[in-house]
Amino acid sequence: MPLKHYLLTPGPTPVPERVALAMAQPIPHHRAPAFEALFAEVREGLKWIYGTQQDVLTFACSGTGAMEGALVNFLSPGDAILTINGGKFGERWGKIGRAYGLAVEELKVEWGSAVEPRAVEAALRENPKIQAVCVQASESSTGVAHPVREIAAVTAKTGALCVVDAVSALGAMALPMDEWGIDVLLTGSQKALMLPPGLAFAAASEKAWRRAEGAGLPRFYFDWRREREMQRKNQTAFTPAISLVLGLAEVLRWMREMTLPAIYARHDRLARAARAAMEAIGCALFAKAPVVSLTTVLSPGGIDSDKLVKTLKTKYGVTLVGGQDAAKGKIFRIAHLGYFDDLDIVVAVAAIERALADHGWKQEPLGTGVGAAMKVMAEAAG
Amino acid sequence: MPLKHYLLTPGPTPVPERVALAMAQPIPHHRAPAFEALFAEVREGLKWIYGTQQDVLTFACSGTGAMEGALVNFLSPGDAILTINGGKFGERWGKIGRAYGLAVEELKVEWGSAVEPRAVEAALRENPKIQAVCVQASESSTGVAHPVREIAAVTAKTGALCVVDAVSALGAMALPMDEWGIDVLLTGSQKALMLPPGLAFAAASEKAWRRAEGAGLPRFYFDWRREREMQRKNQTAFTPAISLVLGLAEVLRWMREMTLPAIYARHDRLARAARAAMEAIGCALFAKAPVVSLTTVLSPGGIDSDKLVKTLKTKYGVTLVGGQDAAKGKIFRIAHLGYFDDLDIVVAVAAIERALADHGWKQEPLGTGVGAAMKVMAEAAG
Repeated sequence: MPLKHYLLTPGPTPVPERVALAMAQPIPHHRAPAFEALFAEVREGLKWIYGTQQDVLTFACSGTGAMEGALVNFLSPGDAILTINGGKFGERWGKIGRAYGLAVEELKVEWGSAVEPRAVEAALRENPKIQAVCVQASESSTGVAHPVREIAAVTAKTGALCVVDAVSALGAMALPMDEWGIDVLLTGSQKALMLPPGLAFAAASEKAWRRAEGAGLPRFYFDWRREREMQRKNQTAFTPAISLVLGLAEVLRWMREMTLPAIYARHDRLARAARAAMEAIGCALFAKAPVVSLTTVLSPGGIDSDKLVKTLKTKYGVTLVGGQDAAKGKIFRIAHLGYFDDLDIVVAVAAIERALADHGWKQEPLGTGVGAAMKVMAEAAG
Repeated sequence: MPLKHYLLTPGPTPVPERVALAMAQPIPHHRAPAFEALFAEVREGLKWIYGTQQDVLTFACSGTGAMEGALVNFLSPGDAILTINGGKFGERWGKIGRAYGLAVEELKVEWGSAVEPRAVEAALRENPKIQAVCVQASESSTGVAHPVREIAAVTAKTGALCVVDAVSALGAMALPMDEWGIDVLLTGSQKALMLPPGLAFAAASEKAWRRAEGAGLPRFYFDWRREREMQRKNQTAFTPAISLVLGLAEVLRWMREMTLPAIYARHDRLARAARAAMEAIGCALFAKAPVVSLTTVLSPGGIDSDKLVKTLKTKYGVTLVGGQDAAKGKIFRIAHLGYFDDLDIVVAVAAIERALADHGWKQEPLGTGVGAAMKVMAEAAG
């Protein structure tokens, strides 16, 4: 029999069967009342997950399009921004900023570490011209959770906006936008929201919308003010990705049934189980402040993690990802965000144990990692 | 029984069952060999439809995102462009251009008419600084086909680029990019390509790519040079809309089976049938140079076309669209691009005859329009 396939990557993530079926429905017209009613429901659901009274806007693009929008809607040419660069996505803030002629100040953080809120505070004190602090809630290249709540508390005392990329975080962990004072919060469809890629979402605070009025950078497709005006009428400025919106409505209904506290508790349990499993088989964790969305692991015994990932794929049907750039060949990443449950972690850990043994690493009996994961799960079940 | 629903709008268009099922497959990871092989197949198929040796790039966005890319990748601040404005989409070129600080010269064309190539030639002669001529192959707000081939022949003699929005044209009619000398050709997924909205496509000529080297407008998400570099490796710069790409591969396989000449002949037949039907029931056509993708009809007897569209929807389950802006309340539009066949036109015409009678317009016996359409179809079948 050909191998069964298991997708365990931090985006795209598996799409639940009921969501796949919802997206296979006939496409309604996006200017018809039936779509408007659906979109109104979706807008409410997004506000609920965001924990905000602001509009959460939906865009047909990947998360990077929303990152671009998060800058071009609130800044003017030459404005200074502070970017937290401790991975691929933190680095991307700088690339976008420079493409638009912003003065980018990078706060470099060692890969695998989280930024210190004090360092952000110091940078803002040293350069009071900084208009925005750009950070990842989950830096998925390293598996690190940056302290978004603390950073928002720091920026709240200044004129700078706290701009948060929560692409691989929102829906996996609590990020109550209004309560924490996040100014711009964006995410994508293909992570904890359990959809295929193709939609991005963004909301902005009153402080950010006031800034938008004078923002001089050019924009059209990603003009959030136009979108807000249209989406308040349950329309989009341009043709939306209708099938994905149909899926999103189904996702949000299901998330309401599950409740947010239960969803967050599940993500926390899976993360703890994956970490316990890796430590039990003698693999060190790469992230010093690990996010609940994924577990990043240093490949042990000098094994090239890209080769390990290849073995997992070709011999066991398990798709994990390795490391990028500075972490290439050194780490592998186990995703557990979105449509993941206990036994998915069992699958991942079992395959990793087998693949490590194939590559000559076997310090503990097979099943040691799986057992450690199961113990965490059983304890959480009470 | 609740009404059956018939989608007869010029985007979104109906999605074939086999394509909907292809998109309901489990999502592959976009950096995995299986996706790369699929993407290579898609890239070849797009070149085939485009009639080009150039790369056809795929983006996660609506058609408007590709329109924006068609300007920001090839122009610099202050550059002059000529836009053909004879409808909503022609007008959009100007809006995008002004948002990016371009000097927009509009060649206004009466709604319902096509631009005269001589007028384009004259405008280019009068203002030799014009860097690009922006036009719609199908202006779907009016149902007009602009003479793209002739315009490309005019720009070829100058330094200006011929930039063509073929969102509601490509795949419905021949637009051989290389043969005609089109410099930038863009389209979207939700029209003749029979997919849900969410993907856009674009290709550029050598003349355009040379221009791209010095283009000074800012861009990041829509940076076509970065995308070309990545897509040549069967990757995308940012996460692609994977489920739609799965559907696209299925669409392209099916289009190869049908062959392009047969697809274009079918569109031509359906367009002639729809026009014959409307004329047979005493309704005047709105477009003086009608495109094969849709038939725009003046609402007869002073009937508000928005009310007619509402009756069609609520009483017969048929979704058509009315007019926008200058044509609001005056026209209705029958789509026949993509997954449409003879009997879809029969459905549309029968429902329109009934709805017109409901609104008091009944000059001919019921079935007169349907009969006229059927005659065209039968003659085409031979």
